[in-house]
Amino acid sequence: MAEERIWTAGLLVIGDEILSGRTQDRNIAQVGTWLNLQGIRLNEVRVVPDVIPRIAEAVNALRAENDYLFTTGGIGPTHDDMTVDAIAAALGVPVVIHPRARATLEAYYATRGGITDARLRMARVPQGAELIENKASGAPGIRIGNIFILAGVPHIATAMLEALNNKLEGGKPLLSRTIGSWTPESEVADLLREVEAAHEHCQIGSYPFIRDGKFGADFVIRSTDQAALDRCVEELVARLHAAGRAVVPGGV
Amino acid sequence: MAEERIWTAGLLVIGDEILSGRTQDRNIAQVGTWLNLQGIRLNEVRVVPDVIPRIAEAVNALRAENDYLFTTGGIGPTHDDMTVDAIAAALGVPVVIHPRARATLEAYYATRGGITDARLRMARVPQGAELIENKASGAPGIRIGNIFILAGVPHIATAMLEALNNKLEGGKPLLSRTIGSWTPESEVADLLREVEAAHEHCQIGSYPFIRDGKFGADFVIRSTDQAALDRCVEELVARLHAAGRAVVPGGV
Repeated sequence: MAEERIWTAGLLVIGDEILSGRTQDRNIAQVGTWLNLQGIRLNEVRVVPDVIPRIAEAVNALRAENDYLFTTGGIGPTHDDMTVDAIAAALGVPVVIHPRARATLEAYYATRGGITDARLRMARVPQGAELIENKASGAPGIRIGNIFILAGVPHIATAMLEALNNKLEGGKPLLSRTIGSWTPESEVADLLREVEAAHEHCQIGSYPFIRDGKFGADFVIRSTDQAALDRCVEELVARLHAAGRAVVPGGV
Repeated sequence: MAEERIWTAGLLVIGDEILSGRTQDRNIAQVGTWLNLQGIRLNEVRVVPDVIPRIAEAVNALRAENDYLFTTGGIGPTHDDMTVDAIAAALGVPVVIHPRARATLEAYYATRGGITDARLRMARVPQGAELIENKASGAPGIRIGNIFILAGVPHIATAMLEALNNKLEGGKPLLSRTIGSWTPESEVADLLREVEAAHEHCQIGSYPFIRDGKFGADFVIRSTDQAALDRCVEELVARLHAAGRAVVPGGV
Protein backbone atom coordinates (compact mmCIF):
# COMPACT_ATOMS: atom_id res chain seq x y z
CA MET A 1 0.00 0.00 0.00
CA ALA A 2 1.38 3.43 -0.94
CA GLU A 3 1.83 5.76 2.00
CA GLU A 4 -1.15 8.09 2.30
CA ARG A 5 -0.58 11.75 2.98
CA ILE A 6 -1.76 12.49 6.51
CA TRP A 7 -3.40 15.88 6.96
CA THR A 8 -2.95 17.37 10.39
CA ALA A 9 -4.42 20.16 12.50
CA GLY A 10 -3.36 21.93 15.66
CA LEU A 11 -5.87 23.26 18.18
CA LEU A 12 -5.25 26.27 20.40
CA VAL A 13 -7.63 26.60 23.34
CA ILE A 14 -7.52 30.16 24.67
CA GLY A 15 -8.61 31.13 28.13
CA ASP A 16 -7.71 31.59 31.78
CA GLU A 17 -10.93 29.77 32.71
CA ILE A 18 -9.65 26.48 31.28
CA LEU A 19 -6.22 26.77 32.96
CA SER A 20 -7.73 27.73 36.33
CA GLY A 21 -9.96 24.67 36.26
CA ARG A 22 -13.10 26.78 36.49
CA THR A 23 -14.37 25.55 33.12
CA GLN A 24 -14.17 21.96 31.92
CA ASP A 25 -13.02 22.13 28.29
CA ARG A 26 -15.30 20.37 25.81
CA ASN A 27 -13.78 21.67 22.59
CA ILE A 28 -10.75 19.37 22.43
CA ALA A 29 -12.93 16.26 22.17
CA GLN A 30 -15.42 18.03 19.91
CA VAL A 31 -12.83 19.35 17.46
CA GLY A 32 -10.85 16.06 17.52
CA THR A 33 -13.96 14.02 16.68
CA TRP A 34 -15.03 16.43 13.92
CA LEU A 35 -11.54 16.48 12.37
CA ASN A 36 -11.47 12.67 12.14
CA LEU A 37 -14.63 12.82 10.03
CA GLN A 38 -12.92 15.32 7.70
CA GLY A 39 -9.90 13.02 7.25
CA ILE A 40 -7.70 15.35 9.30
CA ARG A 41 -5.77 14.27 12.37
CA LEU A 42 -5.60 16.42 15.50
CA ASN A 43 -1.85 16.46 16.01
CA GLU A 44 -1.36 18.77 19.02
CA VAL A 45 -3.39 20.90 21.40
CA ARG A 46 -2.13 23.82 23.43
CA VAL A 47 -4.02 25.76 26.10
CA VAL A 48 -2.73 29.27 26.84
CA PRO A 49 -3.96 32.18 28.98
CA ASP A 50 -5.59 35.42 27.79
CA VAL A 51 -2.24 37.08 27.06
CA ILE A 52 -1.62 38.39 23.53
CA PRO A 53 2.07 37.42 23.12
CA ARG A 54 1.39 33.93 24.50
CA ILE A 55 -1.49 33.40 22.06
CA ALA A 56 0.53 34.79 19.13
CA GLU A 57 3.53 32.57 19.90
CA ALA A 58 1.39 29.43 20.07
CA VAL A 59 -0.44 30.40 16.86
CA ASN A 60 2.82 30.71 14.97
CA ALA A 61 4.18 27.42 16.34
CA LEU A 62 1.06 25.40 15.59
CA ARG A 63 0.24 26.85 12.17
CA ALA A 64 3.77 26.18 10.93
CA GLU A 65 3.65 22.52 12.00
CA ASN A 66 0.20 21.62 10.70
CA ASP A 67 -2.00 21.92 7.62
CA TYR A 68 -4.66 23.66 9.67
CA LEU A 69 -4.94 25.51 12.95
CA PHE A 70 -8.17 25.84 14.91
CA THR A 71 -8.60 28.16 17.88
CA THR A 72 -11.43 28.26 20.43
CA GLY A 73 -12.25 31.08 22.81
CA GLY A 74 -11.59 34.77 23.18
CA ILE A 75 -13.77 36.18 20.38
CA GLY A 76 -16.54 37.76 22.46
CA PRO A 77 -17.27 41.43 23.18
CA THR A 78 -15.41 41.88 26.49
CA HIS A 79 -11.96 43.15 27.44
CA ASP A 80 -10.65 39.62 28.08
CA ASP A 81 -11.37 38.59 24.46
CA MET A 82 -8.01 39.01 22.72
CA THR A 83 -7.85 36.28 20.10
CA VAL A 84 -8.36 38.48 17.02
CA ASP A 85 -5.71 40.97 18.13
CA ALA A 86 -3.28 38.16 18.95
CA ILE A 87 -3.73 36.38 15.62
CA ALA A 88 -3.40 39.66 13.70
CA ALA A 89 -0.18 40.29 15.62
CA ALA A 90 1.05 36.77 14.86
CA LEU A 91 0.39 37.29 11.14
CA GLY A 92 1.68 40.88 11.06
CA VAL A 93 -1.57 42.30 9.69
CA PRO A 94 -3.86 45.02 11.09
CA VAL A 95 -7.26 44.41 12.66
CA VAL A 96 -10.14 45.74 10.57
CA ILE A 97 -13.94 45.76 10.76
CA HIS A 98 -15.37 43.17 8.38
CA PRO A 99 -18.33 44.84 6.59
CA ARG A 100 -20.44 41.68 6.35
CA ALA A 101 -19.76 40.78 10.00
CA ARG A 102 -20.88 44.29 10.94
CA ALA A 103 -24.07 43.92 8.88
CA THR A 104 -24.74 40.49 10.45
CA LEU A 105 -24.32 41.90 13.96
CA GLU A 106 -26.46 44.97 13.20
CA ALA A 107 -29.26 42.71 11.96
CA TYR A 108 -28.89 40.30 14.89
CA TYR A 109 -28.95 43.05 17.53
CA ALA A 110 -31.70 45.13 15.80
CA THR A 111 -34.27 43.41 18.03
CA ARG A 112 -31.85 42.93 20.97
CA GLY A 113 -31.05 46.50 22.06
CA GLY A 114 -29.09 47.63 19.01
CA ILE A 115 -25.44 47.60 18.06
CA THR A 116 -22.89 49.08 20.51
CA ASP A 117 -19.13 49.57 20.46
CA ALA A 118 -18.73 46.42 22.56
CA ARG A 119 -20.85 44.35 20.17
CA LEU A 120 -19.04 45.83 17.20
CA ARG A 121 -15.82 44.33 18.61
CA MET A 122 -17.16 41.00 17.32
CA ALA A 123 -16.95 42.33 13.72
CA ARG A 124 -13.18 42.86 14.08
CA VAL A 125 -11.01 40.46 12.04
CA PRO A 126 -7.38 40.20 10.96
CA GLN A 127 -7.14 41.95 7.58
CA GLY A 128 -7.80 39.50 4.74
CA ALA A 129 -10.07 37.20 6.74
CA GLU A 130 -13.28 35.50 5.62
CA LEU A 131 -16.23 34.71 7.89
CA ILE A 132 -17.46 31.34 9.14
CA GLU A 133 -21.23 31.11 9.41
CA ASN A 134 -22.71 30.80 12.89
CA LYS A 135 -26.32 29.64 13.09
CA ALA A 136 -26.26 29.49 16.90
CA SER A 137 -25.77 33.18 17.75
CA GLY A 138 -24.89 36.52 16.16
CA ALA A 139 -21.14 36.76 15.81
CA PRO A 140 -19.49 34.76 13.02
CA GLY A 141 -16.32 32.70 13.22
CA ILE A 142 -13.27 33.80 11.25
CA ARG A 143 -11.01 32.11 8.72
CA ILE A 144 -7.68 33.56 7.68
CA GLY A 145 -5.40 31.39 5.60
CA ASN A 146 -5.17 28.00 7.33
CA ILE A 147 -6.41 29.39 10.67
CA PHE A 148 -10.00 28.83 11.80
CA ILE A 149 -11.09 31.00 14.73
CA LEU A 150 -14.04 29.51 16.63
CA ALA A 151 -16.06 30.52 19.68
CA GLY A 152 -15.26 29.05 23.09
CA VAL A 153 -18.87 28.28 24.06
CA PRO A 154 -19.10 24.65 22.90
CA HIS A 155 -22.49 24.74 21.16
CA ILE A 156 -21.48 27.87 19.21
CA ALA A 157 -18.23 26.15 18.21
CA THR A 158 -20.37 23.21 17.05
CA ALA A 159 -22.39 25.50 14.76
CA MET A 160 -19.19 26.90 13.25
CA LEU A 161 -17.77 23.41 12.67
CA GLU A 162 -21.03 22.43 10.95
CA ALA A 163 -20.57 25.36 8.57
CA LEU A 164 -17.14 23.92 7.67
CA ASN A 165 -18.35 20.34 7.11
CA ASN A 166 -16.69 18.75 4.05
CA LYS A 167 -15.11 22.06 3.02
CA LEU A 168 -11.52 21.29 4.07
CA GLU A 169 -9.15 19.15 2.09
CA GLY A 170 -8.21 16.05 4.01
CA GLY A 171 -7.06 12.48 3.56
CA LYS A 172 -8.79 9.24 4.37
CA PRO A 173 -10.78 9.44 7.60
CA LEU A 174 -9.18 7.57 10.48
CA LEU A 175 -11.46 4.60 11.12
CA SER A 176 -11.72 2.91 14.47
CA ARG A 177 -13.34 -0.10 16.10
CA THR A 178 -13.53 -0.81 19.80
CA ILE A 179 -13.35 -4.18 21.56
CA GLY A 180 -13.98 -4.27 25.29
CA SER A 181 -13.09 -6.88 27.86
CA TRP A 182 -13.47 -7.30 31.61
CA THR A 183 -9.75 -8.01 31.79
CA PRO A 184 -6.98 -6.06 33.52
CA GLU A 185 -4.94 -4.71 30.59
CA SER A 186 -1.74 -5.94 32.23
CA GLU A 187 -2.89 -9.55 31.64
CA VAL A 188 -3.12 -9.09 27.88
CA ALA A 189 -0.32 -6.57 27.28
CA ASP A 190 1.89 -9.02 25.32
CA LEU A 191 -1.01 -10.13 23.16
CA LEU A 192 -1.93 -6.51 22.30
CA ARG A 193 1.65 -5.63 21.38
CA GLU A 194 2.01 -8.71 19.19
CA VAL A 195 -1.25 -8.13 17.32
CA GLU A 196 -0.35 -4.49 16.68
CA ALA A 197 3.12 -5.46 15.43
CA ALA A 198 1.56 -7.96 13.00
CA HIS A 199 -0.75 -5.34 11.44
CA GLU A 200 1.39 -2.62 9.93
CA HIS A 201 -1.27 -0.01 9.17
CA CYS A 202 -3.14 -0.33 12.47
CA GLN A 203 -2.62 1.10 15.93
CA ILE A 204 -4.12 -0.43 19.06
CA GLY A 205 -4.81 1.75 22.07
CA SER A 206 -5.60 0.21 25.46
CA TYR A 207 -7.82 2.25 27.79
CA PRO A 208 -8.23 0.71 31.24
CA PHE A 209 -10.93 1.49 33.78
CA ILE A 210 -12.29 0.28 37.08
CA ARG A 211 -16.08 0.04 37.44
CA ASP A 212 -17.83 -1.26 40.52
CA GLY A 213 -14.45 -2.51 41.68
CA LYS A 214 -13.93 -4.60 38.53
CA PHE A 215 -11.01 -4.05 36.15
CA GLY A 216 -11.65 -3.80 32.44
CA ALA A 217 -10.26 -2.19 29.33
CA ASP A 218 -11.43 -1.00 25.95
CA PHE A 219 -9.08 -1.70 23.06
CA VAL A 220 -9.42 0.80 20.22
CA ILE A 221 -8.04 -0.28 16.84
CA ARG A 222 -7.41 2.58 14.38
CA SER A 223 -6.52 2.58 10.69
CA THR A 224 -7.31 4.52 7.54
CA ASP A 225 -7.74 1.16 5.74
CA GLN A 226 -11.04 -0.59 6.41
CA ALA A 227 -9.83 -4.04 5.33
CA ALA A 228 -6.66 -3.80 7.42
CA LEU A 229 -8.75 -2.63 10.37
CA ASP A 230 -11.15 -5.56 10.04
CA ARG A 231 -8.29 -8.08 9.81
CA CYS A 232 -6.64 -6.62 12.91
CA VAL A 233 -9.88 -6.70 14.90
CA GLU A 234 -10.51 -10.28 13.79
CA GLU A 235 -7.09 -11.42 14.98
CA LEU A 236 -7.38 -9.50 18.24
CA VAL A 237 -10.75 -11.07 19.03
CA ALA A 238 -9.44 -14.55 18.13
CA ARG A 239 -6.36 -14.08 20.33
CA LEU A 240 -8.46 -12.81 23.24
CA HIS A 241 -10.83 -15.78 22.92
CA ALA A 242 -7.87 -18.19 22.72
CA ALA A 243 -6.60 -16.65 25.97
CA GLY A 244 -9.98 -17.35 27.60
CA ARG A 245 -11.09 -13.69 27.64
CA ALA A 246 -14.69 -12.75 26.94
CA VAL A 247 -15.02 -9.89 24.46
CA VAL A 248 -17.58 -7.09 24.34
CA PRO A 249 -17.95 -5.86 20.73
CA GLY A 250 -18.11 -2.06 20.63
CA GLY A 251 -16.49 -1.72 24.04
CA VAL A 252 -17.61 -2.19 27.63
CA MET B 1 2.29 46.14 47.30
CA ALA B 2 5.55 44.42 46.36
CA GLU B 3 5.28 42.13 43.35
CA GLU B 4 4.80 38.55 44.46
CA ARG B 5 6.73 35.79 42.77
CA ILE B 6 4.31 33.75 40.68
CA TRP B 7 5.01 30.02 40.62
CA THR B 8 3.97 28.31 37.42
CA ALA B 9 3.40 24.80 36.13
CA GLY B 10 2.99 23.27 32.70
CA LEU B 11 0.80 20.23 32.08
CA LEU B 12 1.43 17.67 29.35
CA VAL B 13 -1.53 15.41 28.55
CA ILE B 14 -0.31 12.34 26.69
CA GLY B 15 -2.51 10.18 24.55
CA ASP B 16 -4.04 9.51 21.15
CA GLU B 17 -7.39 8.95 22.85
CA ILE B 18 -7.64 12.61 23.87
CA LEU B 19 -6.65 13.91 20.41
CA SER B 20 -9.04 11.56 18.61
CA GLY B 21 -11.92 12.79 20.73
CA ARG B 22 -12.61 9.29 22.05
CA THR B 23 -11.90 10.31 25.64
CA GLN B 24 -13.04 13.58 27.21
CA ASP B 25 -10.06 14.89 29.18
CA ARG B 26 -10.76 15.57 32.85
CA ASN B 27 -7.20 16.11 34.04
CA ILE B 28 -6.70 19.67 32.78
CA ALA B 29 -9.47 21.00 35.03
CA GLN B 30 -8.45 18.70 37.88
CA VAL B 31 -4.76 19.64 37.81
CA GLY B 32 -5.54 23.36 37.27
CA THR B 33 -7.86 23.44 40.28
CA TRP B 34 -5.40 21.54 42.48
CA LEU B 35 -2.48 23.79 41.47
CA ASN B 36 -4.44 26.93 42.45
CA LEU B 37 -4.77 25.51 45.96
CA GLN B 38 -0.99 25.00 46.09
CA GLY B 39 -0.32 28.62 45.08
CA ILE B 40 0.91 27.53 41.64
CA ARG B 41 -0.56 28.77 38.39
CA LEU B 42 -1.19 26.45 35.45
CA ASN B 43 0.58 28.40 32.71
CA GLU B 44 0.25 26.15 29.65
CA VAL B 45 -1.16 22.78 28.64
CA ARG B 46 -0.11 20.69 25.68
CA VAL B 47 -1.72 17.49 24.42
CA VAL B 48 0.47 15.25 22.27
CA PRO B 49 0.10 11.75 20.78
CA ASP B 50 1.74 8.51 21.96
CA VAL B 51 4.98 9.22 20.06
CA ILE B 52 8.25 9.31 22.04
CA PRO B 53 9.99 12.24 20.27
CA ARG B 54 6.80 14.34 20.43
CA ILE B 55 6.44 13.69 24.16
CA ALA B 56 10.14 14.37 24.80
CA GLU B 57 10.09 17.65 22.86
CA ALA B 58 7.05 18.93 24.77
CA VAL B 59 8.58 17.85 28.10
CA ASN B 60 11.72 19.84 27.42
CA ALA B 61 9.81 22.93 26.28
CA LEU B 62 7.41 22.97 29.24
CA ARG B 63 9.91 22.10 31.97
CA ALA B 64 12.23 24.90 30.85
CA GLU B 65 9.47 27.52 30.96
CA ASN B 66 7.88 26.59 34.29
CA ASP B 67 8.74 25.83 37.89
CA TYR B 68 6.96 22.49 37.62
CA LEU B 69 5.81 20.12 34.92
CA PHE B 70 3.00 17.62 35.37
CA THR B 71 2.21 14.86 32.90
CA THR B 72 -0.88 12.65 32.72
CA GLY B 73 -1.24 9.40 30.81
CA GLY B 74 0.95 6.72 29.31
CA ILE B 75 2.28 5.00 32.44
CA GLY B 76 0.34 1.73 32.26
CA PRO B 77 1.55 -1.77 31.33
CA THR B 78 0.75 -1.84 27.59
CA HIS B 79 2.76 -1.14 24.44
CA ASP B 80 1.13 2.29 23.95
CA ASP B 81 2.41 3.51 27.35
CA MET B 82 5.57 5.45 26.47
CA THR B 83 5.77 8.29 28.96
CA VAL B 84 8.62 6.94 31.09
CA ASP B 85 10.78 6.17 28.04
CA ALA B 86 10.04 9.59 26.54
CA ILE B 87 10.87 11.50 29.73
CA ALA B 88 14.06 9.51 30.24
CA ALA B 89 15.00 10.37 26.64
CA ALA B 90 14.20 14.05 27.25
CA LEU B 91 16.43 14.08 30.32
CA GLY B 92 19.17 11.94 28.78
CA VAL B 93 19.05 9.30 31.51
CA PRO B 94 18.42 5.54 31.28
CA VAL B 95 15.24 3.78 32.35
CA VAL B 96 15.70 1.59 35.43
CA ILE B 97 13.50 -0.59 37.63
CA HIS B 98 12.75 1.22 40.89
CA PRO B 99 13.17 -1.37 43.71
CA ARG B 100 10.39 0.05 45.91
CA ALA B 101 7.99 0.31 42.93
CA ARG B 102 8.77 -3.32 42.15
CA ALA B 103 8.07 -4.34 45.75
CA THR B 104 4.81 -2.34 45.76
CA LEU B 105 3.66 -4.02 42.54
CA GLU B 106 4.66 -7.50 43.77
CA ALA B 107 2.64 -6.96 46.94
CA TYR B 108 -0.33 -5.49 45.04
CA TYR B 109 -0.46 -8.31 42.48
CA ALA B 110 0.25 -11.11 45.02
CA THR B 111 -3.52 -11.67 45.34
CA ARG B 112 -4.28 -10.61 41.75
CA GLY B 113 -2.53 -13.23 39.62
CA GLY B 114 1.07 -12.39 40.42
CA ILE B 115 3.68 -10.10 38.89
CA THR B 116 4.37 -10.40 35.14
CA ASP B 117 6.73 -8.69 32.72
CA ALA B 118 3.91 -6.42 31.59
CA ARG B 119 3.07 -5.42 35.16
CA LEU B 120 6.74 -4.92 35.94
CA ARG B 121 6.78 -2.26 33.21
CA MET B 122 5.01 -0.05 35.77
CA ALA B 123 8.11 -0.18 38.04
CA ARG B 124 10.24 1.40 35.30
CA VAL B 125 11.35 4.99 36.03
CA PRO B 126 13.89 7.45 34.63
CA GLN B 127 17.10 6.95 36.65
CA GLY B 128 17.13 9.19 39.72
CA ALA B 129 13.36 9.30 40.14
CA GLU B 130 11.34 9.14 43.37
CA LEU B 131 7.88 7.60 43.69
CA ILE B 132 4.54 9.33 44.27
CA GLU B 133 2.18 7.36 46.45
CA ASN B 134 -0.98 5.99 44.82
CA LYS B 135 -3.74 4.87 47.20
CA ALA B 136 -6.16 4.18 44.32
CA SER B 137 -4.36 1.32 42.57
CA GLY B 138 -1.03 -0.51 42.45
CA ALA B 139 1.39 1.46 40.32
CA PRO B 140 2.93 4.60 41.85
CA GLY B 141 3.39 7.98 40.18
CA ILE B 142 6.90 9.23 39.53
CA ARG B 143 8.78 12.42 40.39
CA ILE B 144 12.06 13.33 38.77
CA GLY B 145 13.39 16.82 39.40
CA ASN B 146 10.57 19.26 38.71
CA ILE B 147 8.59 16.71 36.68
CA PHE B 148 5.59 14.90 38.18
CA ILE B 149 4.38 11.90 36.18
CA LEU B 150 0.76 11.02 36.92
CA ALA B 151 -1.70 8.42 35.66
CA GLY B 152 -4.20 9.28 32.93
CA VAL B 153 -7.21 7.65 34.62
CA PRO B 154 -8.65 10.69 36.45
CA HIS B 155 -9.37 9.11 39.84
CA ILE B 156 -5.88 7.62 39.97
CA ALA B 157 -4.41 11.03 39.08
CA THR B 158 -6.51 12.44 41.95
CA ALA B 159 -4.92 9.99 44.40
CA MET B 160 -1.43 11.00 43.24
CA LEU B 161 -2.23 14.72 43.58
CA GLU B 162 -3.50 14.06 47.09
CA ALA B 163 -0.13 12.51 47.95
CA LEU B 164 1.51 15.77 46.81
CA ASN B 165 -0.81 18.09 48.80
CA ASN B 166 1.12 20.97 50.40
CA LYS B 167 4.46 19.44 49.45
CA LEU B 168 5.37 21.81 46.61
CA GLU B 169 6.72 25.29 47.11
CA GLY B 170 4.30 27.87 45.78
CA GLY B 171 3.21 31.46 46.19
CA LYS B 172 -0.05 32.91 47.39
CA PRO B 173 -3.05 30.92 46.16
CA LEU B 174 -5.01 32.67 43.42
CA LEU B 175 -8.31 33.65 45.03
CA SER B 176 -11.49 34.10 43.04
CA ARG B 177 -15.06 35.23 43.49
CA THR B 178 -17.86 34.87 41.00
CA ILE B 179 -20.73 37.26 40.33
CA GLY B 180 -23.45 36.15 37.91
CA SER B 181 -26.01 38.16 36.03
CA TRP B 182 -28.79 37.45 33.54
CA THR B 183 -27.26 40.05 31.26
CA PRO B 184 -25.71 39.63 27.80
CA GLU B 185 -22.03 40.36 28.44
CA SER B 186 -21.97 42.76 25.49
CA GLU B 187 -24.25 45.14 27.44
CA VAL B 188 -21.77 45.49 30.32
CA ALA B 189 -18.46 45.16 28.47
CA ASP B 190 -17.40 48.80 29.11
CA LEU B 191 -18.26 48.54 32.78
CA LEU B 192 -16.22 45.33 33.19
CA ARG B 193 -13.19 46.84 31.46
CA GLU B 194 -13.35 49.99 33.58
CA VAL B 195 -13.66 48.12 36.88
CA GLU B 196 -10.73 45.86 36.00
CA ALA B 197 -8.58 48.84 34.99
CA ALA B 198 -9.33 50.53 38.33
CA HIS B 199 -8.17 47.50 40.38
CA GLU B 200 -4.53 46.87 39.57
CA HIS B 201 -4.07 43.45 41.18
CA CYS B 202 -7.33 41.92 39.94
CA GLN B 203 -8.40 40.29 36.68
CA ILE B 204 -12.03 39.98 35.63
CA GLY B 205 -13.05 37.16 33.30
CA SER B 206 -16.44 37.19 31.60
CA TYR B 207 -17.97 33.81 30.76
CA PRO B 208 -21.20 34.03 28.77
CA PHE B 209 -23.84 31.34 28.37
CA ILE B 210 -27.33 30.80 27.02
CA ARG B 211 -29.75 28.79 29.16
CA ASP B 212 -33.37 28.17 28.24
CA GLY B 213 -32.93 30.79 25.54
CA LYS B 214 -31.83 33.48 28.05
CA PHE B 215 -28.45 35.19 27.88
CA GLY B 216 -26.35 35.46 30.99
CA ALA B 217 -22.75 35.66 32.11
CA ASP B 218 -20.63 34.82 35.12
CA PHE B 219 -17.94 37.33 35.98
CA VAL B 220 -14.95 35.77 37.77
CA ILE B 221 -12.71 38.15 39.70
CA ARG B 222 -9.24 36.79 40.52
CA SER B 223 -6.46 38.11 42.72
CA THR B 224 -3.86 36.83 45.15
CA ASP B 225 -4.84 39.68 47.51
CA GLN B 226 -8.06 39.07 49.46
CA ALA B 227 -8.63 42.76 50.30
CA ALA B 228 -8.06 43.84 46.69
CA LEU B 229 -10.39 41.09 45.53
CA ASP B 230 -13.14 42.17 47.91
CA ARG B 231 -12.84 45.83 46.86
CA CYS B 232 -13.03 44.89 43.19
CA VAL B 233 -16.10 42.70 43.72
CA GLU B 234 -17.75 45.46 45.76
CA GLU B 235 -17.26 48.01 42.99
CA LEU B 236 -18.37 45.59 40.28
CA VAL B 237 -21.59 44.79 42.14
CA ALA B 238 -22.24 48.51 42.78
CA ARG B 239 -21.65 49.36 39.12
CA LEU B 240 -23.92 46.53 37.93
CA HIS B 241 -26.67 47.65 40.32
CA ALA B 242 -26.25 51.27 39.17
CA ALA B 243 -26.72 50.01 35.59
CA GLY B 244 -29.98 48.34 36.61
CA ARG B 245 -28.60 44.78 36.48
CA ALA B 246 -29.61 42.17 39.03
CA VAL B 247 -26.66 40.25 40.45
CA VAL B 248 -26.42 36.59 41.51
CA PRO B 249 -23.68 36.21 44.17
CA GLY B 250 -21.60 33.11 43.50
CA GLY B 251 -22.64 32.98 39.85
CA VAL B 252 -25.73 31.92 37.94
